[in-house]
Amino acid sequence: MNRHWVDGVADAGIPADDRGLLYGDGVFRTGLVWDGQVHQFALQRQVLLTDAAALGLEVDVSGLTREMEHAAKQCGRGVLRITLSRLQTERGYGPRWPAPCRRIMSVAPLPARPAHWWGRGVHAGLLSMDSAGPASLSPHKHLNRLPQVLAQRALTPDSGLQEVLMTDPDGRVRCGSMSNLFLKKVDASGPAWITPADGSLMGVSRRSVASAMQRLGFSLEEQAVSMDDLQAAEEGFLANSLIGIWPLQRITQTGAQPESDTALTDWEAPGVQTRAVMAELDHPLVTDMLAAYGDST
Amino acid sequence: MNRHWVDGVADAGIPADDRGLLYGDGVFRTGLVWDGQVHQFALQRQVLLTDAAALGLEVDVSGLTREMEHAAKQCGRGVLRITLSRLQTERGYGPRWPAPCRRIMSVAPLPARPAHWWGRGVHAGLLSMDSAGPASLSPHKHLNRLPQVLAQRALTPDSGLQEVLMTDPDGRVRCGSMSNLFLKKVDASGPAWITPADGSLMGVSRRSVASAMQRLGFSLEEQAVSMDDLQAAEEGFLANSLIGIWPLQRITQTGAQPESDTALTDWEAPGVQTRAVMAELDHPLVTDMLAAYGDST
Repeated sequence: MNRHWVDGVADAGIPADDRGLLYGDGVFRTGLVWDGQVHQFALQRQVLLTDAAALGLEVDVSGLTREMEHAAKQCGRGVLRITLSRLQTERGYGPRWPAPCRRIMSVAPLPARPAHWWGRGVHAGLLSMDSAGPASLSPHKHLNRLPQVLAQRALTPDSGLQEVLMTDPDGRVRCGSMSNLFLKKVDASGPAWITPADGSLMGVSRRSVASAMQRLGFSLEEQAVSMDDLQAAEEGFLANSLIGIWPLQRITQTGAQPESDTALTDWEAPGVQTRAVMAELDHPLVTDMLAAYGDST
Repeated sequence: MNRHWVDGVADAGIPADDRGLLYGDGVFRTGLVWDGQVHQFALQRQVLLTDAAALGLEVDVSGLTREMEHAAKQCGRGVLRITLSRLQTERGYGPRWPAPCRRIMSVAPLPARPAHWWGRGVHAGLLSMDSAGPASLSPHKHLNRLPQVLAQRALTPDSGLQEVLMTDPDGRVRCGSMSNLFLKKVDASGPAWITPADGSLMGVSRRSVASAMQRLGFSLEEQAVSMDDLQAAEEGFLANSLIGIWPLQRITQTGAQPESDTALTDWEAPGVQTRAVMAELDHPLVTDMLAAYGDST
């Protein structure tokens, strides 16, 4: 079912001088396709345009809209990835700025994942990274994803992990390799949700979670997240556009010797507030998976 | 004259699921082609294989060798870029490790650059970067080059700059966007050459310069380079495989207001020892350009 379109042309190849390939000079988004439509179409497109603007990419919005809609219709249910790369024929790093861009739509089936990951939560490993890339670009989903690729080496079949969280050189907890982290903190002023201030994408799922929490009356703060914050948290979850929300059941310190891994948290998942956010988010896959999980137990 | 070959097939397209494009999951090298051959062929191939191994990429060495030789022959004189990207059909960041790779050869004409850049030196701007990417990967030439792309925005036609040097968040001077930096330092123990320890590629030009200096009896140390080191230096140059060596004539602090730029160094270029290294390097383009420059003055 994997298919793609390049500037609207089905199954076209990418030229070897594509700057996304040569230098990672572009941006992308991955979204859920459900019932022939991109979930949160308008927000996905808006965030993509914001990221493109940060790289000085000029987007043909009507072409983009048409191609997103067409790809989603062809896909039915699955994953849509939209990639924009700088169109420029001159060699070398130097970017033409602003510049038009190549539009690449790719659709693929949904990854097969058990319903209990939504219903009972997932295990995440905590991995020390020397850097997740240039901080000023981190809010934007650019094509430089090698840190995430390398982090996911920890997700071996026998690791028992579904995601890996990355810490920065100062020991602060950043985002997951493919998701944002949300933790329910307990402090003197009462409970509040926190999410890492740096190193996280300002993407669709982060905005959707923030909106859902606002409707529920939960407070959410962006702040630096320490190991102490993580260990003191009462519940937590991971979020991205595709999965919606995965409740966190356990976070493990991941090191060179997996046998010496230690659990940093061990929660009854989903927590009460996490369950409320999952319902409020109104994400079709979350709804579907929770129903499937409820049926199977 | 731009041409390319994908796994030996002339002018083939890259599929839209290429992981170099999707995630920057690959490595590359750029080399000088002269008289139908890759300059320092064996060393270029060796460094490429080292970088590929750091990403768990398995290379068909005989195919690579044949395709490098063929592309160079077709090119005659110009630039060869060799790109290797992880071959894997599954979606998502998670890398298959080890994995075979796609081989992409691209040839292009030499960029047109005036001989006096070699003969009288170049101007470089110093630019503060928040990060040049994950440090543990920095010795390897991977496909995540967005920091370099963004740095080269400073090289506008009216900037008068030929290269931009990047500093890290701690104010240390790292590499140039497309070259390594070498400075002749003067201290109590006598003159010595230094080059930044972190953030530099362990590439062909760095090794070639080190060898040339060794033959000349110059000492070269890898160390953190501060702004004080830079301002106290007596001479300096930039090096990469393509240009060989550009003597540095001036380094300027580059900021938001170009008109307030201040010169940090102002050297008679090339310096005496730089000139010696240029001759010892035995790089065909350097030799050619110095001859052309000598003829024209």
